[in-house]
Amino acid sequence: MHNTEKGMKPLRLSEVADLLDGELVGAQDPEITGVASIEEAGPGDLTFLASKKHGRALAASGAAAVIVGPGLDVDRPAVRVSDPYGAFASFLERLLPDRDRVFPPGVHPTAVIDSSAEVAGAAAIGPYCVIGSGCVVGAGSRLGAHVILGCDVVVGVDNLIYPGVIIREGCLLGDRVIIHAGVVIGSDGFGYYPGQGGIRKIPQVGVVEIQDDVEIGAGSCVDRATTGRTVVGVGSKVDNLVQIGHNVSIGKACSLSAQTGVSGSSALGDGVFTGGQVGIGDHVKIGAGVRIGGQSGVSREIPAGQTIFGYPALELVETFRMFAALRRLPELLRRVSRLENGSGGTAGKTGKDQE
Amino acid sequence: MHNTEKGMKPLRLSEVADLLDGELVGAQDPEITGVASIEEAGPGDLTFLASKKHGRALAASGAAAVIVGPGLDVDRPAVRVSDPYGAFASFLERLLPDRDRVFPPGVHPTAVIDSSAEVAGAAAIGPYCVIGSGCVVGAGSRLGAHVILGCDVVVGVDNLIYPGVIIREGCLLGDRVIIHAGVVIGSDGFGYYPGQGGIRKIPQVGVVEIQDDVEIGAGSCVDRATTGRTVVGVGSKVDNLVQIGHNVSIGKACSLSAQTGVSGSSALGDGVFTGGQVGIGDHVKIGAGVRIGGQSGVSREIPAGQTIFGYPALELVETFRMFAALRRLPELLRRVSRLENGSGGTAGKTGKDQE
Amino acid sequence: MHNTEKGMKPLRLSEVADLLDGELVGAQDPEITGVASIEEAGPGDLTFLASKKHGRALAASGAAAVIVGPGLDVDRPAVRVSDPYGAFASFLERLLPDRDRVFPPGVHPTAVIDSSAEVAGAAAIGPYCVIGSGCVVGAGSRLGAHVILGCDVVVGVDNLIYPGVIIREGCLLGDRVIIHAGVVIGSDGFGYYPGQGGIRKIPQVGVVEIQDDVEIGAGSCVDRATTGRTVVGVGSKVDNLVQIGHNVSIGKACSLSAQTGVSGSSALGDGVFTGGQVGIGDHVKIGAGVRIGGQSGVSREIPAGQTIFGYPALELVETFRMFAALRRLPELLRRVSRLENGSGGTAGKTGKDQE
Repeated sequence: MHNTEKGMKPLRLSEVADLLDGELVGAQDPEITGVASIEEAGPGDLTFLASKKHGRALAASGAAAVIVGPGLDVDRPAVRVSDPYGAFASFLERLLPDRDRVFPPGVHPTAVIDSSAEVAGAAAIGPYCVIGSGCVVGAGSRLGAHVILGCDVVVGVDNLIYPGVIIREGCLLGDRVIIHAGVVIGSDGFGYYPGQGGIRKIPQVGVVEIQDDVEIGAGSCVDRATTGRTVVGVGSKVDNLVQIGHNVSIGKACSLSAQTGVSGSSALGDGVFTGGQVGIGDHVKIGAGVRIGGQSGVSREIPAGQTIFGYPALELVETFRMFAALRRLPELLRRVSRLENGSGGTAGKTGKDQE
Repeated sequence: MHNTEKGMKPLRLSEVADLLDGELVGAQDPEITGVASIEEAGPGDLTFLASKKHGRALAASGAAAVIVGPGLDVDRPAVRVSDPYGAFASFLERLLPDRDRVFPPGVHPTAVIDSSAEVAGAAAIGPYCVIGSGCVVGAGSRLGAHVILGCDVVVGVDNLIYPGVIIREGCLLGDRVIIHAGVVIGSDGFGYYPGQGGIRKIPQVGVVEIQDDVEIGAGSCVDRATTGRTVVGVGSKVDNLVQIGHNVSIGKACSLSAQTGVSGSSALGDGVFTGGQVGIGDHVKIGAGVRIGGQSGVSREIPAGQTIFGYPALELVETFRMFAALRRLPELLRRVSRLENGSGGTAGKTGKDQE
Repeated sequence: MHNTEKGMKPLRLSEVADLLDGELVGAQDPEITGVASIEEAGPGDLTFLASKKHGRALAASGAAAVIVGPGLDVDRPAVRVSDPYGAFASFLERLLPDRDRVFPPGVHPTAVIDSSAEVAGAAAIGPYCVIGSGCVVGAGSRLGAHVILGCDVVVGVDNLIYPGVIIREGCLLGDRVIIHAGVVIGSDGFGYYPGQGGIRKIPQVGVVEIQDDVEIGAGSCVDRATTGRTVVGVGSKVDNLVQIGHNVSIGKACSLSAQTGVSGSSALGDGVFTGGQVGIGDHVKIGAGVRIGGQSGVSREIPAGQTIFGYPALELVETFRMFAALRRLPELLRRVSRLENGSGGTAGKTGKDQE
């Protein structure tokens, strides 16, 4: 039976405490039959409290029990641990379906593997995979059904490559990489020049390098470099339907939310965070630790550490001030007309017009 | 022969009238060789008039004949019916290629179906489909080529699942669902927490529930819930390249246009409509019947029934007023400077500066 | 060995000059071991100088040698040609991996080809392709692994169709078309009408016509027409994750950057250029040669030749003026309040408030 939200084997809270190396708080030992967020939890559900600020949400929650950190008061049965987020994650880990059901081990007989490819004995290759000449697939890596590796692709160890992923010729994946369904890695960069007879294609001879511990969300595309490499740095996480253009360099531990687009030759420093649908122009440098609000448009260099927002993106506080002022603009036009008519000055104005 | 725009078998308009249970208007009975919108129709084409307001478009149209509702005057041969939109749709229905050509019946011998999966005898399974352990596929459901169902996926009756769709473990589809090519359902939610050694993944143990009569457009992604279910409600229609995050709840009869993104844990009420490229932040509640203009950004709760637009989205009339005022802003700066210089008051201004 | 950035067979610059039909400039004849852009080039790399304005970039470049046009001074060994961009492109062309490795010739035995389909002898069909009844595939066209052609699809000559592409029934491709991985062509248009029992589907009986020399980027979707044809015109280039709605008409030699969306029934003239994430509403006419800045939103007719930008999009200069004025808006509110208080006029103001 698959572990759906209620598919877990029921456990006493004391058993949960043992599993998480935590302390049972309170006299009761309720049966736990599911897990859920604070807002969604109901009878039988275990939830977790990340910080004091969610205390009110807990009061309103239907959860049977809660995982909490040191020093937080709770109003119901609890398991106290040093790292509640990590404990909750490790409890969820136990509820995942068996990996051998999701990625059956072994090489499926329908996989088409070129005789020159090296597939480690401990790798799993799903039905109808196609692995081209010169490929290397490391030990412990699992490819779901219908994964296609073009020639000379190198996949490190312990990768999870979900069904339908396409990785084109010469691209390189590190270790412990997760690529979700429908991703395309190594498609041609969008490079043309005005030539005889119209728009002419610039051959895209570079590759893509996906470094260790990267995760790339469903349906995203990472273009190969025109020359050299398009790079997604160690530990970076990319959400669904994200576009990463040719010769882009994404630093380490970045987080790119869904539908973000990074145009060709732009470079993001380490730890950059984008909200959803952010657009970054070409040849733009984004400093380390920059945070970019959803739907922002960025076409200039951003110094490290800034938080920016808007279209075009400015520092957050400036954009908020502008948005606030903007809502007063129609009224401002009237006020200026009154001033021009000689009736807007101290004499004629009412208190509500004042800032 | 496939029914392209001109591939239909020619019919007399009187035959069309019979098929649609309508009344032939006018003395002529032209031959109908195709169908088209009012703007695109040419000789031999049948079109339809949805309401009086398109009367001028009809006058300019090259259509040979028109389907009209009661009480509308027409300038050419016509078929009068009570519901012209429905009659036109049902006429188009007749022009679709035979479903058995698009989704050939039976189970293709190349399909890899786990022995524990239950596939109804009346289902059609295309070449190279992969159906995992514990799956259920209901009667009358048709899977195109290369459809992949992970373990424990449940597909109801009379679904149409186009080629290349990937549905991951444990996800649930209702009845009469249509999923277009390249869709990914049940990819991991984008959930991480700051842990030791960088960004750490929160296991995504929930599922996706696609309810009856939903249609999901090509290339769209619906993430599984962290815990519990991501839900797309009865009769909702989702366009291409749309992103639906983990734990999102889409109500009944919603319509999400292309490239819209809904971030994690947001909830849309029934009948919500979004234009293209709309972005909805995380944990946002959108009331029933809300209409959201294209490219809007929404990060706050929206009461039922509002029509909103803009970035950030405000009520439509407010955004339009702001946009109008914004175009006058450069001029306003000059006007205020003049006032400050003592030359912008009644004495010095000209009529064109007045509002 | 795959030609990665350093995978080329080393050549003397004089050999490069011969290959490109150019003239060796300078006394040295360095060994060339790779190619790169001016910014990325290092020792052993060949780069190119497109125009004088990149002269400073060249001075800072680590390139061993450069391809230049007539009349440009250079500070290092060079090859002078009449068309440096074209020469660089043709040199890159030589570095591409052998096409027979990327698209192995012949028909793979696992391909499922309907007996009524006509596949030219000189076409290449990859593993697990599915080619439906009535299809035609022209000479020299190459289909990667897992390409799916629905019934009655017509593919011209010398097409490159990358893995995982899905082309639905009745769609038409011209000659020398390139379709990148994961593209969906001919998905249903997003057409519904309010009918009995909720939102009702309008059958989509039209097709898609992709004309000669078009290139379509990874993950993009082109919807079939409701009736008639959705058209992408000769020589147009479409980037990744672009959405093209039903009955859209894209002119010749257009360039649509990543994540752009064009809604149903809109028409772009020849040579239209869009930046990334542009949104074009439905039934909108865009004149020939219009250039649209990134993330712009367009919902009205745009005359030929305009350059527009913004949300909503206005002429570039107007939007820039507005953005500049907008940043001064919070200050403007204060200035107007001062005027209303009788303290903002000539007497009370300081120089910095002046425009």
